[in-house]
Amino acid sequence: MIPLRASYRDISLYSPPKRPCRVDLSDNTNLFGVPPAAARKLGEFHSELLARYPRSYAPDLRRVLASRLGVSSEWVTTGCGSDDVLDSALRAFLEPGEVLAFQDPTFVMMPLFAKVNGLRPAAVPLRADFDVDPEALLATGAKVIYLCSPNNPTGTALSREAVVRVVEKAPGIVILDEAYVDFARGPGFMDLALTRPNVLVTRTFSKAFGLASMRVGWGVGHPRLMAEVEKARGPYKLSQLAESMAVATLKEDEPWVRVWAEEAVANRERLREALSAMGLKPLPSEGNFVLVPVPGASEVAERMRERDVNVRAFQGLTGVGDALRIGSAPWPLLETALTALRESLR
Amino acid sequence: MIPLRASYRDISLYSPPKRPCRVDLSDNTNLFGVPPAAARKLGEFHSELLARYPRSYAPDLRRVLASRLGVSSEWVTTGCGSDDVLDSALRAFLEPGEVLAFQDPTFVMMPLFAKVNGLRPAAVPLRADFDVDPEALLATGAKVIYLCSPNNPTGTALSREAVVRVVEKAPGIVILDEAYVDFARGPGFMDLALTRPNVLVTRTFSKAFGLASMRVGWGVGHPRLMAEVEKARGPYKLSQLAESMAVATLKEDEPWVRVWAEEAVANRERLREALSAMGLKPLPSEGNFVLVPVPGASEVAERMRERDVNVRAFQGLTGVGDALRIGSAPWPLLETALTALRESLR
Repeated sequence: MIPLRASYRDISLYSPPKRPCRVDLSDNTNLFGVPPAAARKLGEFHSELLARYPRSYAPDLRRVLASRLGVSSEWVTTGCGSDDVLDSALRAFLEPGEVLAFQDPTFVMMPLFAKVNGLRPAAVPLRADFDVDPEALLATGAKVIYLCSPNNPTGTALSREAVVRVVEKAPGIVILDEAYVDFARGPGFMDLALTRPNVLVTRTFSKAFGLASMRVGWGVGHPRLMAEVEKARGPYKLSQLAESMAVATLKEDEPWVRVWAEEAVANRERLREALSAMGLKPLPSEGNFVLVPVPGASEVAERMRERDVNVRAFQGLTGVGDALRIGSAPWPLLETALTALRESLR
Repeated sequence: MIPLRASYRDISLYSPPKRPCRVDLSDNTNLFGVPPAAARKLGEFHSELLARYPRSYAPDLRRVLASRLGVSSEWVTTGCGSDDVLDSALRAFLEPGEVLAFQDPTFVMMPLFAKVNGLRPAAVPLRADFDVDPEALLATGAKVIYLCSPNNPTGTALSREAVVRVVEKAPGIVILDEAYVDFARGPGFMDLALTRPNVLVTRTFSKAFGLASMRVGWGVGHPRLMAEVEKARGPYKLSQLAESMAVATLKEDEPWVRVWAEEAVANRERLREALSAMGLKPLPSEGNFVLVPVPGASEVAERMRERDVNVRAFQGLTGVGDALRIGSAPWPLLETALTALRESLR
């Protein structure tokens, strides 16, 4: 019998139920369309480039992102989705066996990446107001603290006061996952990545920027940190096409992104009102989705899938319990989802 | 001062000199063109899919690869290049601090991935005939042994006798990197992945299959091993476009791949003869490249780049010394390279 890694025994694959449904609101992607410049790049890409490696470490994308922030490329890293940036950061910043602290609930890949990297996870419950508890996070002594704002799956944002307290008192590095920042009321915490030596902010092209299929994530922090993150991975994580689409989207499609992010926010609020009118108590959200506590959420979601609507069910979320996460979308899709939900809440 | 990971201090980024050159023979990609079905898929891809996540764990590609081998999908894994499969395998099979044994010289990413994963590398020199030394590899006691055949950068293949000896006596898992198998005389060692419980064979679409830009690698082994490798990484490593191109290439472009692999082999041999005629002693090769020992290879390569020809220089390779690795290509490119080499050998 081949000896396998003992610490891997209890790792499960990421596998949300994924029966194909006509209305899929389960993954918080941009359901309003595709950034036009990216679609154009698809048509313009010279096929003879397919056989060549992309340039290592996505230099064009890093340069464009950096120039928008007024810094040099050394402040930016990229990856195969922000998953990859987060995973690489954990590898780069923590020795195996060390503690990773993170807010709870949060992005489901975090506890998984902790195990994958041989780390000890310290889940620190969010407070009743869904802000982080700085003292509880700091009390873990963790060399890396992961925060997520707006938070997935709650949709709630963290207060600047709490985040700054964590950043100032942390003995190590604070990772701020801002996958959903484009749907938030405030500007987020990018300024901290640019002014503090211990902050890594991660972002993605998979949500508001409409390029989930192409796997492009990025991160910003002091060059001393970014250099370590890049050490933790190979040089070719973005296809050349993905890089060129991301660059084109940044240069040309920001108005498009803003318009549809606003629409996603407007429909999110309309969805929250409709859920409240059904007697449910959806959480406030600054993401492009709504989390709504529903007892027996898994069974409800299964019945919704029978009605061709896919939403994400969570069981026993800390401080929330069972809940459904419903992505924002063009209103007709949300109406279909509301009907399916009504019929499934028996 | 933020405490960084001590074991990462001496990791360098993968950074071959990459001044753009008109003739680039430095990365062993397919310089004969692009697989036609993949190019067609680029034109056919529905841009509205860009905003959606690919399906997790590339099920279509796994199914097609598996059916060609006469096994089920559980025998196959995929990744963002075979780099990613190799890196994930090291994570999945070794606890930090354990030993990774590998032949030396070999793929430069191996010692790097060992460090990145907190492993102790055990480099075991190839024998004078460039075969592996089974007893020396086994004497390391390593739970994972990495072999590469045809080997990068030497181009030499391993004997079946030596590989089987390692596989039979290894206390753990043997990884067989076959990135260059399409240029080899024999069929390689895929049969071992299908019949032994402890063998992982990795392959790539980046070389003969002409899709380096799209980042598609794969691996085959017993489902018990594959399940562990998939645990070591996130679910979305291939873009949907990359997966569809790889599937189309497998289904339609194999004749194309064979024709140009044969041409690459023929030109490789012609290149070896020309190098020998210059008084050099190129190694035998079963890859799409030739390694030729040249004192002061780095300086020679630099002078070749001044002549617009990029080849890969290695310094002090175990058992070889300084050497140039020259990729096979359409003959006019190799003629240009030979001229540049002649002028650069002062």
